[in-house]
Amino acid sequence: MKRTLRGALGIVWLASAGWSSAWAGALVLQTDFGTADGAVAAMKGVAVQVDPRLPIFDLTHEIPAYDIWSAAYRLKQTVSYWPAGTVFVSVVDPGVGTERRSVVLKTRSGHLVVTPDNGTLTLLAEDLGIEAVRAIDETVNRLAGSEKSHTFHGRDVFAYTGARLAAGVISFEDVGPVVDGDIVRLAHEKARRDGMAVVGGIPALDVRYGNVWTDIGDTLFAELKPAFGDRFRVVIAKEGREVYAGEMPYAHSFGDVAESEPLLYLNSLLNVSLALNMRSFAAAHGIEAGGAWSVRIEKIAR
Amino acid sequence: MKRTLRGALGIVWLASAGWSSAWAGALVLQTDFGTADGAVAAMKGVAVQVDPRLPIFDLTHEIPAYDIWSAAYRLKQTVSYWPAGTVFVSVVDPGVGTERRSVVLKTRSGHLVVTPDNGTLTLLAEDLGIEAVRAIDETVNRLAGSEKSHTFHGRDVFAYTGARLAAGVISFEDVGPVVDGDIVRLAHEKARRDGMAVVGGIPALDVRYGNVWTDIGDTLFAELKPAFGDRFRVVIAKEGREVYAGEMPYAHSFGDVAESEPLLYLNSLLNVSLALNMRSFAAAHGIEAGGAWSVRIEKIAR
Amino acid sequence: MKRTLRGALGIVWLASAGWSSAWAGALVLQTDFGTADGAVAAMKGVAVQVDPRLPIFDLTHEIPAYDIWSAAYRLKQTVSYWPAGTVFVSVVDPGVGTERRSVVLKTRSGHLVVTPDNGTLTLLAEDLGIEAVRAIDETVNRLAGSEKSHTFHGRDVFAYTGARLAAGVISFEDVGPVVDGDIVRLAHEKARRDGMAVVGGIPALDVRYGNVWTDIGDTLFAELKPAFGDRFRVVIAKEGREVYAGEMPYAHSFGDVAESEPLLYLNSLLNVSLALNMRSFAAAHGIEAGGAWSVRIEKIAR
Repeated sequence: MKRTLRGALGIVWLASAGWSSAWAGALVLQTDFGTADGAVAAMKGVAVQVDPRLPIFDLTHEIPAYDIWSAAYRLKQTVSYWPAGTVFVSVVDPGVGTERRSVVLKTRSGHLVVTPDNGTLTLLAEDLGIEAVRAIDETVNRLAGSEKSHTFHGRDVFAYTGARLAAGVISFEDVGPVVDGDIVRLAHEKARRDGMAVVGGIPALDVRYGNVWTDIGDTLFAELKPAFGDRFRVVIAKEGREVYAGEMPYAHSFGDVAESEPLLYLNSLLNVSLALNMRSFAAAHGIEAGGAWSVRIEKIAR
Repeated sequence: MKRTLRGALGIVWLASAGWSSAWAGALVLQTDFGTADGAVAAMKGVAVQVDPRLPIFDLTHEIPAYDIWSAAYRLKQTVSYWPAGTVFVSVVDPGVGTERRSVVLKTRSGHLVVTPDNGTLTLLAEDLGIEAVRAIDETVNRLAGSEKSHTFHGRDVFAYTGARLAAGVISFEDVGPVVDGDIVRLAHEKARRDGMAVVGGIPALDVRYGNVWTDIGDTLFAELKPAFGDRFRVVIAKEGREVYAGEMPYAHSFGDVAESEPLLYLNSLLNVSLALNMRSFAAAHGIEAGGAWSVRIEKIAR
Repeated sequence: MKRTLRGALGIVWLASAGWSSAWAGALVLQTDFGTADGAVAAMKGVAVQVDPRLPIFDLTHEIPAYDIWSAAYRLKQTVSYWPAGTVFVSVVDPGVGTERRSVVLKTRSGHLVVTPDNGTLTLLAEDLGIEAVRAIDETVNRLAGSEKSHTFHGRDVFAYTGARLAAGVISFEDVGPVVDGDIVRLAHEKARRDGMAVVGGIPALDVRYGNVWTDIGDTLFAELKPAFGDRFRVVIAKEGREVYAGEMPYAHSFGDVAESEPLLYLNSLLNVSLALNMRSFAAAHGIEAGGAWSVRIEKIAR
């Protein structure tokens, strides 16, 4: 009897914690919808209909309209901080209602991303690796009664499918067939060594503070054998024309230099970044993010 | 013994899922407060005090200040996507502290809405029907100790009462007496057939993308016997004066036409809407939403 | 057997409700990060890694960049509306990566606040009292593998520690040693009686509506023996120079006066506030919040 009881309680425990399958977990939503209207709330309602106890979170809904690159970058910035099994739904979907594929990526790290296959997965696929990609079979994975709606797959397909995955109602295999060939990937240069310098791009700004984030990782930067306090020459160019050139120290953090002074530091993703302490580097020097921009960083001999 | 055990486990299951009464469910908040200060967080704190495990969601807090029509429209846009039993709290309340009634609507679909009775319920009452409306008896349904505060019923009355309903602490009958007579309704024209055309209003813009949403539903539109690819003549007027006139095809979705080209489609609420693919129709042609605006749509003979 | 069963079920109940220690409870996040990028989502991911069932809420993420005073004020506005045991994480942290202390405040009311010790706790310490303050021992209370990151303690230290406190993984005593001496406090004048008047500051605006919030509490105001309908002379000055002078009634709420007319009322924190019904007092008269501003309020003899 004792054993039976334990078994039964075990079931209750699992059920009450919402873990009814290996993939059960949180649902995290990202869109370019903003939060001023009801679109995100409709998505959440659909998810709650699937499972009223599903933990639902927002990554961001402030992706600039149609900006697939930003969607890709925000996933890169956050996914690995969530537990394996977390299900992300990302809807930046200018091609909604066309033939573009709806997919679910399972990364090698065990995270799931439900999204239109339009480049959104570019950076995650590079960072976390592809375990498998499945095309969503919308004949079974679509909100009942939504067939007449052709412009809100975020609600009718992606939130619905993401919630059912997160709640363990369906498994990854139930999503649909494995995708033939590769996912859609956005072209982008990779940061590289160039003699005594490292060269990279500006994939994003730390918008709120105006810090400039490069794609030069700590491992590549380490090839310059940097020590805190070393000074670096930094040149930023737009389409090859120099926009900024200056010198600054490699610092742990902003407060290591005086107010308004420049510094080079490793940001929260361990990428080389440029800032002014308590001021906006981007605003002060007219720097933006995107494919047109490049950064060259060279250590100044002592 | 086995039966007793099952019974006991059943109770645990219900309790752990938070369903302690027929009305227990999620709490969804809508306000015109924004999220830059602590007002919404104070409302959530009150709800968590009622039940620390209550699932709490945001519809939106970006309703323009005092804009009751928008509050009504955002409820229309979202409520039916949530499970029956979900409790919505909507606080756009320019008359806070005056004699305006505080009420709870129970729709025929089984959703509850806690709100000042100032027109906020207009569109839901039309769409989902009124099962009953009860006036909140503030002598029992008010946060203890909040009597001196006359300007934040969102926290002291609405969030408190909504949370107690959602948590099953009180039933709908405990809210207060059934309201005599009708709720407050905002006057608005209904979309209609006009010979070979349909005529309607612009209740809202799809702000983020600039799409123009009309109140012409798919059933009314179907009277024109539209087929995908048919072309329509669209005239938009403000207070009777023509602001836009043009022709466009009826399409499934945006990507069915070339970039920047116009299309007519059924939006996520299955209402006729107007868009430019990848551009803002509203910005391009100076269109806004509201009672001054009308739209006339006529099929062009092939 | 029956007793054993009850005991076992009791454990299930506690576990399923997430209350595994005296301090277990909700986690509430406040930052100046905004929600346009992934910073807040990374913090939440870390918290979900600690406990996938932890209830996580947002106070606000729209604190103006580096504005410690606003962080302090928003905590004052909201903390007491949450249950004792709730854990707040507040990250407005211009000194991140420097020698500034990371602390956890336990208030006399039983709330916990995890934050850099940079003045953020000023107003809570005054209102709710200090039970104890502990410095975070980052050798044990820091996300594993985050050692190379020096600019995102919000994720690596504060969210991680707050989640572990809220989930009951660690106790308040496990945070680190009790702090010697006082916390960092922002200097600010206190509201006071001045003859037949009361004089105070403007710690915040009710931004969305343009109402002017003073720090004159209802108890101090009561010394003027106000009755609803009494008229008051109000003078607002910036650095001693008069910016506004006018008369207005003491009202319950906005709707007690005609549209666009001024009123004096007790706001949701029971502080004297100034408004125009359905209009912005701050915009109409060019009033802002902050240390440069003062308000003088005097009852007009009938």
